[in-house]
Amino acid sequence: MARSETISFLSDYGLEDEFVGVVKSVIRHIAPHATVVDITHGIAPHDIRAGALALARSCQYLAPGVVLAVIDPGVGTDRRGVAVETAEGELTLVGPDNGLLAAAVSLLGGAGRAVSLTNTDRHIPAPGPTFAGRDIFAPVAAHIADGLDLAELGDFIDPVTLTPGMVPLTRLEENTLLAEVLWVDRYGNAQLNVDPEEVAAFGDRIRLQWGHTKETRTARRADTYGDLKAGEVGLITDSYGLLSVCLERRSASDELKLRPGDAVSLAAPES
Amino acid sequence: MARSETISFLSDYGLEDEFVGVVKSVIRHIAPHATVVDITHGIAPHDIRAGALALARSCQYLAPGVVLAVIDPGVGTDRRGVAVETAEGELTLVGPDNGLLAAAVSLLGGAGRAVSLTNTDRHIPAPGPTFAGRDIFAPVAAHIADGLDLAELGDFIDPVTLTPGMVPLTRLEENTLLAEVLWVDRYGNAQLNVDPEEVAAFGDRIRLQWGHTKETRTARRADTYGDLKAGEVGLITDSYGLLSVCLERRSASDELKLRPGDAVSLAAPES
Amino acid sequence: MARSETISFLSDYGLEDEFVGVVKSVIRHIAPHATVVDITHGIAPHDIRAGALALARSCQYLAPGVVLAVIDPGVGTDRRGVAVETAEGELTLVGPDNGLLAAAVSLLGGAGRAVSLTNTDRHIPAPGPTFAGRDIFAPVAAHIADGLDLAELGDFIDPVTLTPGMVPLTRLEENTLLAEVLWVDRYGNAQLNVDPEEVAAFGDRIRLQWGHTKETRTARRADTYGDLKAGEVGLITDSYGLLSVCLERRSASDELKLRPGDAVSLAAPES
Repeated sequence: MARSETISFLSDYGLEDEFVGVVKSVIRHIAPHATVVDITHGIAPHDIRAGALALARSCQYLAPGVVLAVIDPGVGTDRRGVAVETAEGELTLVGPDNGLLAAAVSLLGGAGRAVSLTNTDRHIPAPGPTFAGRDIFAPVAAHIADGLDLAELGDFIDPVTLTPGMVPLTRLEENTLLAEVLWVDRYGNAQLNVDPEEVAAFGDRIRLQWGHTKETRTARRADTYGDLKAGEVGLITDSYGLLSVCLERRSASDELKLRPGDAVSLAAPES
Repeated sequence: MARSETISFLSDYGLEDEFVGVVKSVIRHIAPHATVVDITHGIAPHDIRAGALALARSCQYLAPGVVLAVIDPGVGTDRRGVAVETAEGELTLVGPDNGLLAAAVSLLGGAGRAVSLTNTDRHIPAPGPTFAGRDIFAPVAAHIADGLDLAELGDFIDPVTLTPGMVPLTRLEENTLLAEVLWVDRYGNAQLNVDPEEVAAFGDRIRLQWGHTKETRTARRADTYGDLKAGEVGLITDSYGLLSVCLERRSASDELKLRPGDAVSLAAPES
Repeated sequence: MARSETISFLSDYGLEDEFVGVVKSVIRHIAPHATVVDITHGIAPHDIRAGALALARSCQYLAPGVVLAVIDPGVGTDRRGVAVETAEGELTLVGPDNGLLAAAVSLLGGAGRAVSLTNTDRHIPAPGPTFAGRDIFAPVAAHIADGLDLAELGDFIDPVTLTPGMVPLTRLEENTLLAEVLWVDRYGNAQLNVDPEEVAAFGDRIRLQWGHTKETRTARRADTYGDLKAGEVGLITDSYGLLSVCLERRSASDELKLRPGDAVSLAAPES
């Protein structure tokens, strides 16, 4: 197979420890020609859902090659490690088979060939069982970038056996759209799992309700952050095409107490 | 034009989200030969002043090529995006025209040619209006690194119309120098906007006063952190040639409550 | 000498300031062919011990070339800067001679040739005395990566004069092993300075005791995190071959109040 020039890398390793550096060093021994592009390593420890969503937001922009994704609370157990071809072979995703890769695989057009990483000849010897990123996933990603065919990495598996992701869907109930906060970004914008089309009929102002105390605010649809007035709650189509709850230059998450996974209902104000 | 091998990149994106990784991925599609060197992405959200100062501290060290700088509270509004040649063409700065680039442009010898990034053919299609780093600035920076002339990116503008920066100047008033904390680094050293020459006449000991309560301490001019005794407040010429308030191996910022933007007065002790 | 393709880089600079970016920019001027691999920059400010341990955990995985390590509370004093060849010349370590490099040098087979970085012609001019990473260590590391022989960088020194590291050793006292927490990782696992062999005779369950209040818990030896039950304290051979105190998907450090440097005693439960 052809060599890849790029390995895109996402994990929950953080940057305080040397985990990311060691993974890159292992890659560099095997595929010194490849450039590693960090997607992010700031996913909260063990948060597969947040990692899967970050990968989904990024995947259409990634350079052709290998995608290494490691969030792995089950390290050392019998969960499989996998490599999955997608996007007509342009991207090969490597990581644990725990749902982390599922949304990206789906957005990239579904899985092509997939293998379980059972060929330990392609791993590196480990003094302990708990750092699969270094000992299994890094060498496998590097070998793929170096042109090794998936067949050399383990047994082919049926892609339908890959662990599915958990993508929260909206639900319409008595003219109210029941939605969820997918993600809060660094600026405090709270992205909902809502396509603007779903609320077009509600008009320019939308009643939001959330939390135990059924906190209620009326938000205004706006084009950009700059269109918002001080104190006004905005609903903006964000850079991923989803509705996002925003305040002007302040954190909507902090001020409105919206966190990832929180349920939010949307309705027309008069309803 | 000649290709550039390096794109230096500064932003307020942080590393928790995938913003930085996505910007680099977009660059890699267009200019795969270029290496991206991260200056920092840890500028506080929307803090143009802090970003402009970090860029000013770095700019004389940056490798020849393109500098991509994005701190952009006005994203989506009508503030311009610009590309500005400096340093006799050795560095081309790309970012929002909101003052972020001004101090660096000035330190690099002033602006040469400048364009407003109006040619949308060189941007990438966006599902929403709010991620100019990904959709406008990244592809533009990559095209410049790939050798595209500025003329292909938009309309030439008069550099005098670029938004100026806000560089705080000192003021001498009745033998007292009125200064300001520019920056607090990771070690808690508080850099002042003061050239050592400005306080040479005050002698070896200098009275510092700051804060609502007019906190007063006598600081000693010292050559290095190691020269300071425990508990002593030092005034050291820092690695950028400016005076910095320091404690020996402890955070002057934390212990003396000095934050960026705080006013500090300096005078001879007897005055 | 031969060029090196890789400079591995560890520091306590953090990523909030532009320090890391400026060091990389200086390197890029001198050795544009080299790739910089970040080990970590998240070591706590001035924490030589934590940096030395992170370097020791990483060193056997690093790509051949130069290792740049800077944690430098004595910057500007008369502590030496050094470059030390190790691993039969495969890795050359550059940094302050304050103990930071010692454990890695030892793990890599001991020091070969070593120089004190006295040749200021290979440094860059500095506006102040306090950023040795930028002005001394970065250009030196880059020159070595570019093939310059150590002899060009300063005076050869006897490696026995290098500052030794402080590796905490265990001690057996009345059937109790007196140990220490070396490191707490992002997941809250508390690595001890204990080889599994040292506690083999204690059996499958081990009594741990630590802290002022002599907190006592019985831990179970387990193979992986996944083997632990909720609430159970585990002792796992970690990915570096040392015993680590762990909880199932939670932070042992937070819940048991174990911090780096804390003394922990291990014994058979009945003793």
